[in-house]
Amino acid sequence: MYKMTATFMLHTCVCFSAVADEGMWLFNALPEEHLKQQHGFEVSPEWAEHLMLSSVRFNSGGSASFISSNGLVLTNHHVASDTLYKLSTADRNLANDGYLATDLQAELKAPDLELNQLVSIEDVTDTVNQAVKATMTPAEASKARQATMAKIESESKAATGMRSDVVTLYGGGRYHLYRYKKYTDVRLVWAPEAQAAFFGGDADNFEYPRYCLDVTIFRVYEDGKPAQIEHFLEVNPDGAVHDDLVFVSGNPGRTQRILTADALEYQRDYRMPRILNLLRRKEILMQQYALGGPEQARRGQDALFGLQNSRKAYTGMLAGLQNPEFIDGKRAGESQLQNQAGSDQPWRVISDVQRQRIELQKRSGSLRGRIYGIAEDIVLLTAEDQQPSEQRLREFRDSNRQSLEQALFSPAPLYDDLERFELADELARFCEIRGGSDPLVVKVLDGQGPRERAAALIQDTQLFDVEYRKQLVSSGWSGVESCQDPLIKLARLLNPEYRALRAMQEELDEQERQAYAKIADAKFQLEGESVYPDATFTLRLAFGLVKSYQQDGQTIPSNTTLGGAFDHQAAHGKQGEWVLPDTWEQAKDKINSSAPYNFVCTADIIGGNSGSPVVDRQGRMVGIIFDGNIQSLTADFYHEEQQGRAVAVHIAAVLEALDKIYDADELKQQIGK
Amino acid sequence: MYKMTATFMLHTCVCFSAVADEGMWLFNALPEEHLKQQHGFEVSPEWAEHLMLSSVRFNSGGSASFISSNGLVLTNHHVASDTLYKLSTADRNLANDGYLATDLQAELKAPDLELNQLVSIEDVTDTVNQAVKATMTPAEASKARQATMAKIESESKAATGMRSDVVTLYGGGRYHLYRYKKYTDVRLVWAPEAQAAFFGGDADNFEYPRYCLDVTIFRVYEDGKPAQIEHFLEVNPDGAVHDDLVFVSGNPGRTQRILTADALEYQRDYRMPRILNLLRRKEILMQQYALGGPEQARRGQDALFGLQNSRKAYTGMLAGLQNPEFIDGKRAGESQLQNQAGSDQPWRVISDVQRQRIELQKRSGSLRGRIYGIAEDIVLLTAEDQQPSEQRLREFRDSNRQSLEQALFSPAPLYDDLERFELADELARFCEIRGGSDPLVVKVLDGQGPRERAAALIQDTQLFDVEYRKQLVSSGWSGVESCQDPLIKLARLLNPEYRALRAMQEELDEQERQAYAKIADAKFQLEGESVYPDATFTLRLAFGLVKSYQQDGQTIPSNTTLGGAFDHQAAHGKQGEWVLPDTWEQAKDKINSSAPYNFVCTADIIGGNSGSPVVDRQGRMVGIIFDGNIQSLTADFYHEEQQGRAVAVHIAAVLEALDKIYDADELKQQIGK
Repeated sequence: MYKMTATFMLHTCVCFSAVADEGMWLFNALPEEHLKQQHGFEVSPEWAEHLMLSSVRFNSGGSASFISSNGLVLTNHHVASDTLYKLSTADRNLANDGYLATDLQAELKAPDLELNQLVSIEDVTDTVNQAVKATMTPAEASKARQATMAKIESESKAATGMRSDVVTLYGGGRYHLYRYKKYTDVRLVWAPEAQAAFFGGDADNFEYPRYCLDVTIFRVYEDGKPAQIEHFLEVNPDGAVHDDLVFVSGNPGRTQRILTADALEYQRDYRMPRILNLLRRKEILMQQYALGGPEQARRGQDALFGLQNSRKAYTGMLAGLQNPEFIDGKRAGESQLQNQAGSDQPWRVISDVQRQRIELQKRSGSLRGRIYGIAEDIVLLTAEDQQPSEQRLREFRDSNRQSLEQALFSPAPLYDDLERFELADELARFCEIRGGSDPLVVKVLDGQGPRERAAALIQDTQLFDVEYRKQLVSSGWSGVESCQDPLIKLARLLNPEYRALRAMQEELDEQERQAYAKIADAKFQLEGESVYPDATFTLRLAFGLVKSYQQDGQTIPSNTTLGGAFDHQAAHGKQGEWVLPDTWEQAKDKINSSAPYNFVCTADIIGGNSGSPVVDRQGRMVGIIFDGNIQSLTADFYHEEQQGRAVAVHIAAVLEALDKIYDADELKQQIGK
Repeated sequence: MYKMTATFMLHTCVCFSAVADEGMWLFNALPEEHLKQQHGFEVSPEWAEHLMLSSVRFNSGGSASFISSNGLVLTNHHVASDTLYKLSTADRNLANDGYLATDLQAELKAPDLELNQLVSIEDVTDTVNQAVKATMTPAEASKARQATMAKIESESKAATGMRSDVVTLYGGGRYHLYRYKKYTDVRLVWAPEAQAAFFGGDADNFEYPRYCLDVTIFRVYEDGKPAQIEHFLEVNPDGAVHDDLVFVSGNPGRTQRILTADALEYQRDYRMPRILNLLRRKEILMQQYALGGPEQARRGQDALFGLQNSRKAYTGMLAGLQNPEFIDGKRAGESQLQNQAGSDQPWRVISDVQRQRIELQKRSGSLRGRIYGIAEDIVLLTAEDQQPSEQRLREFRDSNRQSLEQALFSPAPLYDDLERFELADELARFCEIRGGSDPLVVKVLDGQGPRERAAALIQDTQLFDVEYRKQLVSSGWSGVESCQDPLIKLARLLNPEYRALRAMQEELDEQERQAYAKIADAKFQLEGESVYPDATFTLRLAFGLVKSYQQDGQTIPSNTTLGGAFDHQAAHGKQGEWVLPDTWEQAKDKINSSAPYNFVCTADIIGGNSGSPVVDRQGRMVGIIFDGNIQSLTADFYHEEQQGRAVAVHIAAVLEALDKIYDADELKQQIGK
């Protein structure tokens, strides 16, 4: 699934030049010439603006679009699953069983969703770069740059009231100010069953052909009423036939296409194997937790799905890197760029940074897990508040406060047994990373084994109580500094090491930023403006053709049908993850079995694009992205167009399912209007 | 489950002194005084010899006993599972469905089982040590020692016809020659369903209370007829009541109780985390393979169970090491030993060896997996055959040839899709360990990604054909040297690195052997002869009391009952792994529900003890070991008697099940007679 793996975010962002239908293009720098020449399509400013304003970003790591004038938002089930999970209880499993609000009163408010609608982009490169003087050390440069960025953001927020983010593009070659309208009252309207949305489970994930109704509908509210939406997508249920040109408007999370060969080797030999070890560890852990019983299985389900998804994605990415041809080819191409740049100095800097990153892996000043994350956030937030906004760690700047508090004070349920289970493993992992004799480990464990220590911490903390968290934050640093809550004490204990490592990482990031900016300049000079920046979880336009492909000597058709889902179920003996919901069996005779269900196109996407609308030349919705096939998993490093494909749910299947399977004709009637 | 995790064998073996009912005692040095004083039990030579000769070792990693005069052997279902798996096909899943041979003709011959019955022990310490001169380097010493051991073994085999193994005890303090009668015609008589044997699955594994019929019965044959067995165990279905003294006669695989604090830190911070990463990786891999369909699930099942079991065991072991008290206590105790030894030199040597082991982890000259293992064995075996037996790598000595060939030429099925899946992962892992730019990795991948390379290797190799393997071996090194089979070529390519690493490891092992021999001497001097050696997968006697224990404020009774299995099923909603087989449901009313089912005792056991008979003071069988509880998982490093317990199936339950559930009264009548 192409949701962003938010826990493994980028540490740098880079750029690449486009061939064929490759590219994740900025809305203020669309590839007009290429579209005109290759596809005879002229991008009008109105077309682009309408699509941009109809697109929405989910803070939980995905994309979406407005699909009605009365606030309906269409995204993936697996993007919504975080919210479905938080709205569920032991007696009501929305993620598994689905939901349909029969009227407005029945629409369920998400505890902590934030939706962002991009409304403008402004180039602030000069302002940001002017803050950095040539004489500054990397640490000073990083601080100065961040201070300027925070200042630009604060001023923008004050002037416009909008969420304002300065985005680093081309690895540091450009800085753009993105302004967003925020929606924080988001309510669940409809979700199908997990059996329909994730039909075929982990086995079919990242495979094709597929048969998944991976969609969910929310509605945004303002002032307690459905929001009036000016820009929303009409639908075209007849579109996306073979060879059609289609566009994808969404928020790809991270690509690393300009990485130097040395940086790629670091990814291949250190970072990715390490991440995979972590993912597999947590996947087994969550499987073990789920063995505790049906309620434990439910509590752990969302995390487990996310881990499986990431593990499969990273396995594919690492396989791409381990193919010797790729990095060899990359290295061969570097000499031309180095000639253009007049020096290999940026490459040497990057190479040196990788060596330092390997060293940093032997330290850790933090623990994963929601409850420890809350403790850490409270300690950092109150400490940072003692300084002016511009001097704080970036996520604690004033302009981000509202979003941060929405997460920190979320009423979403936390489960003490699950938190204890995860914290015990995190303490063990902390011990493994630093070694059991490390003085900080000794202090953290406080004479106990990881399990006993975690049990004591979870038993005695008050942080499960949202009101207590609010009190702590409002007490400021003086309150937090003397707080005796054991998790707050633990976060205080780790705080100096966390800060030391964070500072070192930011210094390395700045060195890479400056180096990649030079490499990007060389690329601009060599290849003109036909260059798109690496993905940054901001709105981009991709495009491509609806297109079949060859695999193992067979032609894989560009689309599947609703009837094919029943055939696929039969082919797998109607067992395991290949069991359609009862609602489907009951509606089987009513469904138009030849209606298109899922389809593929060559558009260049990656995690974060989940939920992106797929539109036709007229800007009408024809589908919604939810996955890429296994061949596309190299997308972090390069776009593969021979076999690599983006996978979408066809809008015709959504409409058919609402009508024939889910008795939601009234909802269906609102869509596109 | 307490099967030996044969894939992660010991690299050294050590010794420890006993308190309470701790200890895995040599049959030629039983703790007679302790048994007399603590338990009023006098060990007679006849009692001990009868028990020794009634005990059997499985080469697949477990223990067992003779239970009838006509060759019946009782072991665990999970010890037998390797054979059940090899005897299964797509249409006949013996591991899941169980089996009952209704007459001798229906007994199924295991493809490659070897059973060893220990018949004598002889101290050869002086001979072995005389081979090593003080002036020798560790490498020379290691070679000289191994040559002498191989010579002793060959001479013994020639003189007696028996399997003859020189066993290194007390980490090098003693060398004993063990002679075994071998049984290689071993046939399956009866196995229950996996649902009964492994009731509660991974969740209940290493937990207590338990309800598992973890048993299987084989029969050994000689000259095509059931072997006549002089020493077999009678049974006592009324025994093993609370507070009874019981004995366990079996083959604990490996303990590391004398490890120095520095060696324990190496285990805690490097070796165990690394093994756990590997186990989790392979567990996820086999889960993924099983998603391919029911037949893939069957093909991968035995491996998956083994991986889960090891992962859970190692997790418990590491948790024990991560408790700060343990290593702190160990270090505190070392000064007394160092005073006795008159030097801390052995401790410094061991500390230095650990540092070198960490460096060795960055290299690899081998790949896991059955088909590559066959290629490697053929390359090594034919190369080693060019030298006299005493100078070969130890496993290729003449006296071991028969056992080696039984494994190498086994007709047990190999599945090309499974081997391809595993080999692809091994090539990826090889790339991760050494780094993708390593020249050897580049040669191994031969320009392809791991998946493509594995597919090509598996497609083109002829090693799936047993006859081809035999031809290759008989062609000798000259045939193998010019062989163009791609897996043989790959094993030849890796061979120099394999040998280099092996030599370094043996050098380190020898350094440790000499150092631990000195530490063992110091211990002997301090504590007299009340010292047992660390486990070496050779026959040992343990003992203890059938005893309840306290956990979370509750008393855990020393035994469960057959009726309790139905209650346990109901408590878990009769779902997942908590579903008893149909045979049990059908027999429910006939079963004596109060018959003892599983029970615990304080005996000191570890992996490899699976299948060990538990006997009473009269030497009659009262049960069969199959597991330890979670608190006992520290046993690698120390025996925990407060809560740690060995878990056994009561013999009464076996007899009751044969009679009432499995319609095997005729088989039952043979047992103990």
